Amino acid sequence: LDTSATLWWDSHKDCLCYIEQTLLPGEYRIIECRDVDRLATAIRRLEIRGAPALGVAGAYGVALAARTSPHTDFSKVMTGVRQAAELLRSTRPTAINLGWGIDRVLKGLAAARTSDEVRTISLREAENIAAEDTACCHAIGGHGAALLPDRCTVLTHCNAGALACSSWGTALGVIRSAIEAGKDVKVFSCETRPLLQGARLTAWELARDGIDVTVITDSMAAHFMRAGAIDAVIVGADRITHDAVFNKIGTYTHAVTARYHKIPFYVAAPLSTFDAERNERDVVIEERAREEITIMGNRTYVTDSAKVKNPAFDATPMELVTAIITEKGVLRQPIDTRSHLSFCKSH
Amino acid sequence: LDTSATLWWDSHKDCLCYIEQTLLPGEYRIIECRDVDRLATAIRRLEIRGAPALGVAGAYGVALAARTSPHTDFSKVMTGVRQAAELLRSTRPTAINLGWGIDRVLKGLAAARTSDEVRTISLREAENIAAEDTACCHAIGGHGAALLPDRCTVLTHCNAGALACSSWGTALGVIRSAIEAGKDVKVFSCETRPLLQGARLTAWELARDGIDVTVITDSMAAHFMRAGAIDAVIVGADRITHDAVFNKIGTYTHAVTARYHKIPFYVAAPLSTFDAERNERDVVIEERAREEITIMGNRTYVTDSAKVKNPAFDATPMELVTAIITEKGVLRQPIDTRSHLSFCKSH
Repeated sequence: LDTSATLWWDSHKDCLCYIEQTLLPGEYRIIECRDVDRLATAIRRLEIRGAPALGVAGAYGVALAARTSPHTDFSKVMTGVRQAAELLRSTRPTAINLGWGIDRVLKGLAAARTSDEVRTISLREAENIAAEDTACCHAIGGHGAALLPDRCTVLTHCNAGALACSSWGTALGVIRSAIEAGKDVKVFSCETRPLLQGARLTAWELARDGIDVTVITDSMAAHFMRAGAIDAVIVGADRITHDAVFNKIGTYTHAVTARYHKIPFYVAAPLSTFDAERNERDVVIEERAREEITIMGNRTYVTDSAKVKNPAFDATPMELVTAIITEKGVLRQPIDTRSHLSFCKSH
Repeated sequence: LDTSATLWWDSHKDCLCYIEQTLLPGEYRIIECRDVDRLATAIRRLEIRGAPALGVAGAYGVALAARTSPHTDFSKVMTGVRQAAELLRSTRPTAINLGWGIDRVLKGLAAARTSDEVRTISLREAENIAAEDTACCHAIGGHGAALLPDRCTVLTHCNAGALACSSWGTALGVIRSAIEAGKDVKVFSCETRPLLQGARLTAWELARDGIDVTVITDSMAAHFMRAGAIDAVIVGADRITHDAVFNKIGTYTHAVTARYHKIPFYVAAPLSTFDAERNERDVVIEERAREEITIMGNRTYVTDSAKVKNPAFDATPMELVTAIITEKGVLRQPIDTRSHLSFCKSH
């Protein structure tokens, strides 16, 4: 099974490398990024996406700012690093991991006293975050694999896979770990409109691993649940507040229909996704461009005189979540992310 | 409000004319069809689609076969007509109206004794069906309009509009009639993957009428229901058995999520859509081509090594339907399409 990374630091070239995800599955291209502005554009354009990967990208972005600074003076380097951090933070408002990764490197930089230390510490911290993310995904995979029957078909939405993390994946990490443990797991991948991450990315990375994957439109999920074809739903998360799971638009629908069909609905996410001090109402849902919905390939599908709405995420209230699979263990109902905070933070 | 037809007989040119719906909204093109094979292709390609429109197209198709027959001998003309009828019937297995329209013209032809009578009676019967369909839509509109609040936002799926009928529409007919009656009705149109009839057709025909329409992905419907933005769901139907409503894939999801959010879920359909002697298990759901899901515009979105499923319809069990709006009145819960058969057939 795939253990390759979706983004990594190339120490020979001293630059950040990543798979340009908007080109998949047609083209597999590695981008060498040497510029924070370019990285910010890449995040906005979803060349890099997925909550855990955004945390790693934010961390590497701070390191990139430090290592490409034209200055030698410590305070000037730090000023540039902080500006870069704010630029990167502003690119995606909903995913919490982005800010988390940025802040963790900034916090690490509190120990830096020279511009050389800024360059060294920022990269070391980013590398740690990437390595921890991979370890995290394997831990999530292990905890989650135990929840799945020996033979089952899992429905997933969007891409919470190796492409969304430093590697292995969260929701897809659970599937990979279950298969590694000898279970027979098939996957239904919802295409995930509007940007089709399920069709483009999840199907691609699972098929590459030889995992049995079937792409369906988002609107077919309930039909196949009713037909008895789905044994569990597993999705990732962009932010988990006290009362809700924010994830790709369409997730909430699967949670409601899974409940109706008495199918377990699991969320697989690292603790860095938790924002348990906040509530759903505190979170801004990113509204993305009209063209993501109206244009595909070379064709326009909606008349100019119709309106369009394009929220990138929705909120699933905690009562619809069967369990949250974290790297430290499984949070079951009644899920109280705040009361689990001590458990989360202390481990 | 729009009263134009989506398909009609041009008596000067002696041919069937229709709007080529696969080109909308980019191009508005009228096709002049003089050939049953071409019509069969048009139905298969969804150049003409929508359950009531298929009934009208089937009827006109039989007339077209009669009027373009190279024969003068009565029995030879009738043989050709019957072959054409079976060809047309085979194009779409799930929509019942297609066969219904074909059979009604064939039944009318029982009175024909000469090849001239075949030509005349078939066209007259098809014209009657088209005119009745329009009247039907207005009657459905009137009955349905009374169900809507004075100010409301209605969610719809696929296109059950003027483009799906001879004119006015079933689900969209209800909306048009409500607006004509002075109600303030806004519409959320689900784009309806894979073929985007909601994005391409419903948004186009409503915007052309000046009706406030917002396109969303299918996966957003439940999110907006939860936000309180949707007051009712109205969809059309391709076939209504004793126990279920068959309609475009994705309809069932809206029925489940509407029930969860305590939002009424209405089906608007003429009685010709009823197949009350059959049950859900008797109906074959058309499985359409992989490419409808994997290719859009000039781009392929799914790796060749992933499987795809593409059922064109789903079944919504009757208990999730708040009411069925027909031309003869509103069937409310407990909906028993068989016990209403006398009501249906006698009116």
